[in-house]
Amino acid sequence: MNTLSRFLNALDSYKISDGSQFRLADHNPDDDGHLGLDKDMGKNLLRQVKGLLQDLQELLYANQTHSLLIILQGMDAAGKDGTIKHVMSGVNPQGVAVTSFKQPGPTDLLHGFLWRIHAAAPQAGRIVIFNRSQYEDVLVSRVHPDLLKNGHVPGALNTPEFWEGRYSDIRHLEHYLSRQGTVVLKFFLNISREEQRERLLARLDIPEKRWKFSPSDLHEREYWDDYATAYQDAIAQTARPHAPWIIVPANHKWYARLVVIGTIIRALHNLRQVTPQPSPDVMHQLDDYRTRLLQEKP
Amino acid sequence: MNTLSRFLNALDSYKISDGSQFRLADHNPDDDGHLGLDKDMGKNLLRQVKGLLQDLQELLYANQTHSLLIILQGMDAAGKDGTIKHVMSGVNPQGVAVTSFKQPGPTDLLHGFLWRIHAAAPQAGRIVIFNRSQYEDVLVSRVHPDLLKNGHVPGALNTPEFWEGRYSDIRHLEHYLSRQGTVVLKFFLNISREEQRERLLARLDIPEKRWKFSPSDLHEREYWDDYATAYQDAIAQTARPHAPWIIVPANHKWYARLVVIGTIIRALHNLRQVTPQPSPDVMHQLDDYRTRLLQEKP
Repeated sequence: MNTLSRFLNALDSYKISDGSQFRLADHNPDDDGHLGLDKDMGKNLLRQVKGLLQDLQELLYANQTHSLLIILQGMDAAGKDGTIKHVMSGVNPQGVAVTSFKQPGPTDLLHGFLWRIHAAAPQAGRIVIFNRSQYEDVLVSRVHPDLLKNGHVPGALNTPEFWEGRYSDIRHLEHYLSRQGTVVLKFFLNISREEQRERLLARLDIPEKRWKFSPSDLHEREYWDDYATAYQDAIAQTARPHAPWIIVPANHKWYARLVVIGTIIRALHNLRQVTPQPSPDVMHQLDDYRTRLLQEKP
Repeated sequence: MNTLSRFLNALDSYKISDGSQFRLADHNPDDDGHLGLDKDMGKNLLRQVKGLLQDLQELLYANQTHSLLIILQGMDAAGKDGTIKHVMSGVNPQGVAVTSFKQPGPTDLLHGFLWRIHAAAPQAGRIVIFNRSQYEDVLVSRVHPDLLKNGHVPGALNTPEFWEGRYSDIRHLEHYLSRQGTVVLKFFLNISREEQRERLLARLDIPEKRWKFSPSDLHEREYWDDYATAYQDAIAQTARPHAPWIIVPANHKWYARLVVIGTIIRALHNLRQVTPQPSPDVMHQLDDYRTRLLQEKP
């Protein structure tokens, strides 16, 4: 068995399709798959499999029956932007859109928390990447429940029933999307607290990286354990066969990117799409069209 | 007990909050509430209660915590447009929007059937009226399943599981909306087949009404029983306490309009909203603001 096959088989261990037994602490951010790969070999492998992704995206685009929704979540500096850049570059941008969900604006807050999410869902044939997502509404607002007061939702906020309602609404939206033909893949880029410290330090030490630093990153870092609990609960409550979570070991960026692209390739491959063929009666006409074009006066 | 109170009490018999026992045939389109009202008295009563609706809409707008979604469904010529005109005229249009869901366009069809619906959901403080709605996707496409092929949904179409999935997705969307503070009221304007015949004839006989006639109305009329079955199933599957159906006896237009406005008024009244008051510290400042304005040099 070659490295690629062994790698693809290892992916199953990161996928959570049923959250009932999920514990974030069971997942090691340092894991590199024990495939004997190093950073350079990993980058080589990534380059190889990118061609596969391009082919599969073309089939998705041509068939216009399914779509792919990729959700990227993770602590600050977990590598969300880098993953998008390194995994998706090379894919035809006509078929891909990235939506970054920042803090909701005034109009967003006047609507339900899923309003801007549903609006950005992919149409048939397309790939959409959510850089942050509906999960922020059970993560950042769970860690900082005062933010809930910015919304216009009546009734008791921040009760167990309130959060259960949100998890339930998210589950149902994802179930609906999957019924419409959307493949939903949710990636948690799992870094350690120490790795975050090093990456934030690099943003301060390396002049080219300074624009990435935000003082709020240091502030949020103080809530590390609260975020870990919120992630643990959100993943446990929303992992489903039609919308699995993938817990990506992300201390090694090169390995995280391989896990993400490998998971995407496997999911698209499972659709078993082929180039669409014209129907028999159209097929029959193609010779006529060809003749007409050939006989056209120059 | 005066006529208004007796009328408001009669409304309960039209509301379906649990569809498990629902049979459309149990509902008489000719019902006029047996209140001894005639057309003129009914119009008078409508004029009276419109003032209440205006006041309640202002409270909804001022509080910005809840919203109201009114869904209007019915056979052709059941009176959807007339109901909107006669019930909602007089209400401040800044707080009300009507969305008419015609046949989905190419971009709609590339998305899930609830995409354009969710996008049009009301923001806090507003009333939105759906003239036709998500229910068309379990009515017209159930009667004419060939229409399903216009969509881009993979998998088996027009199976019991397919329709159960759609009912379920609709239920969940409405549950979510209600959790966000949206009052959902779904009106089925229930006319008899004979009443439809007379209304369509009037559209042909009266020159001022001819623009309303569409040959497709006659075509769809041939599917009356299929539509009745589709409505029966849709209502049975989606009536819930947080999103009830109201089966409006609609052979008498004046009575149908009373039932619709009465139901809306009762639902808004149940929110027990009052004019928002400034918080105590703002209250304290109001005298200062007043003094500053009075002392301003002209």
